[in-house]
Amino acid sequence: MVYETVSFGAVGHRSGKVSGMSEVATTRRSRITPEREAELYRAVLDLLSEVGYDAVTMDAVAARTRSSKATLYRQWGGKAELVVRAMRSQKPGSIADVDTGTLRGDLHTIVGREDDCAMARNAALMRALAMAVHMNDDLRQAFKELLVEPEMEEFRRMIRRAVDRGEVRSDNPALDYMVHMLVGAFATRTLIDDLPPTQEFLTSYIDAVVLPALGVTTH
Amino acid sequence: MVYETVSFGAVGHRSGKVSGMSEVATTRRSRITPEREAELYRAVLDLLSEVGYDAVTMDAVAARTRSSKATLYRQWGGKAELVVRAMRSQKPGSIADVDTGTLRGDLHTIVGREDDCAMARNAALMRALAMAVHMNDDLRQAFKELLVEPEMEEFRRMIRRAVDRGEVRSDNPALDYMVHMLVGAFATRTLIDDLPPTQEFLTSYIDAVVLPALGVTTH
Repeated sequence: MVYETVSFGAVGHRSGKVSGMSEVATTRRSRITPEREAELYRAVLDLLSEVGYDAVTMDAVAARTRSSKATLYRQWGGKAELVVRAMRSQKPGSIADVDTGTLRGDLHTIVGREDDCAMARNAALMRALAMAVHMNDDLRQAFKELLVEPEMEEFRRMIRRAVDRGEVRSDNPALDYMVHMLVGAFATRTLIDDLPPTQEFLTSYIDAVVLPALGVTTH
Repeated sequence: MVYETVSFGAVGHRSGKVSGMSEVATTRRSRITPEREAELYRAVLDLLSEVGYDAVTMDAVAARTRSSKATLYRQWGGKAELVVRAMRSQKPGSIADVDTGTLRGDLHTIVGREDDCAMARNAALMRALAMAVHMNDDLRQAFKELLVEPEMEEFRRMIRRAVDRGEVRSDNPALDYMVHMLVGAFATRTLIDDLPPTQEFLTSYIDAVVLPALGVTTH
């Protein structure tokens, strides 16, 4: 799950639907500025890569960002949501904005939006979080709700467009395995090859594996 | 890396080449019996799933198995090698023994050798080890040398036979991504779907993704 959100992922900006805490907060106090929010997220991600999820505490975040714990809890509800929103703030934009007219174009565009440095940084963060996601139910839940599911929904729309255009047969069995193909490449590149997933690697993998499996001719 | 060893993996029995410690031991004392070795490995895996890699100590293994620490060190050199050899002892046999005459047959046979319970158990063990592999250089090294590399070599031979038979074109670009396709499916099934990788899932994935990407017609 966690790798997906980095590799091919992009989620939109905060939507009201998934930020119940923020809605409550709005009625109680003015929201923090986007600049302050970005600063907080940056601090959370720095802490995360320095000490790991388990050792990140709301106290540490409050100290690092000179906020009150009360503010943090009011705005984010808790550590799991704060960390996931911080991860999400790093996404380069929404998949929904990508519509090049071909599936190959869409996939290449998504891979191309994040430069190799950003991808390597995100892969390192994800690796730091991977175990925590398995150990902490609330973190896993926040990941699913706030990152994976919104992104998967946009991704499915992209695939649906390809089917509607006639690029991919609607009964192609590989359609059930888009996530496994894409996330798998990202995860194994990191875990087995011990190399950062680069644009070049992912683009080449898409052309060699994903598109042929879907029956899309690449030239 | 770690997932590979479970999903499509099987390594041969101990070979002299990778067990320098054991060779030394042979000259000093009689080797332990295969039954005793199996018992020790079982105890190590139990400990591993109970407390995790970091908390497994040679003291705990010695106590659990009523061995002396000296014996453990003489036979295995250290915790990393002991744990990896214990994992390896769970493999259902060697890929090298599988030669059905078609790539599809070979892949299905490899998946079919391990029943779903064994696969779920191994997936859980692998998950417990995944983070430790990244944190401990000696464990990562032992994994690569004793599990991943021997297995990958046998796997490459299997693929070469398919190329030699004319089933797969030698310049098919997906050949570079066999590990990513296969291990990726196993890893994402566990991480994203939060489901154990079953024979049915892996077999279906092979037919839907791996063989089409390689240009192998499945019927």
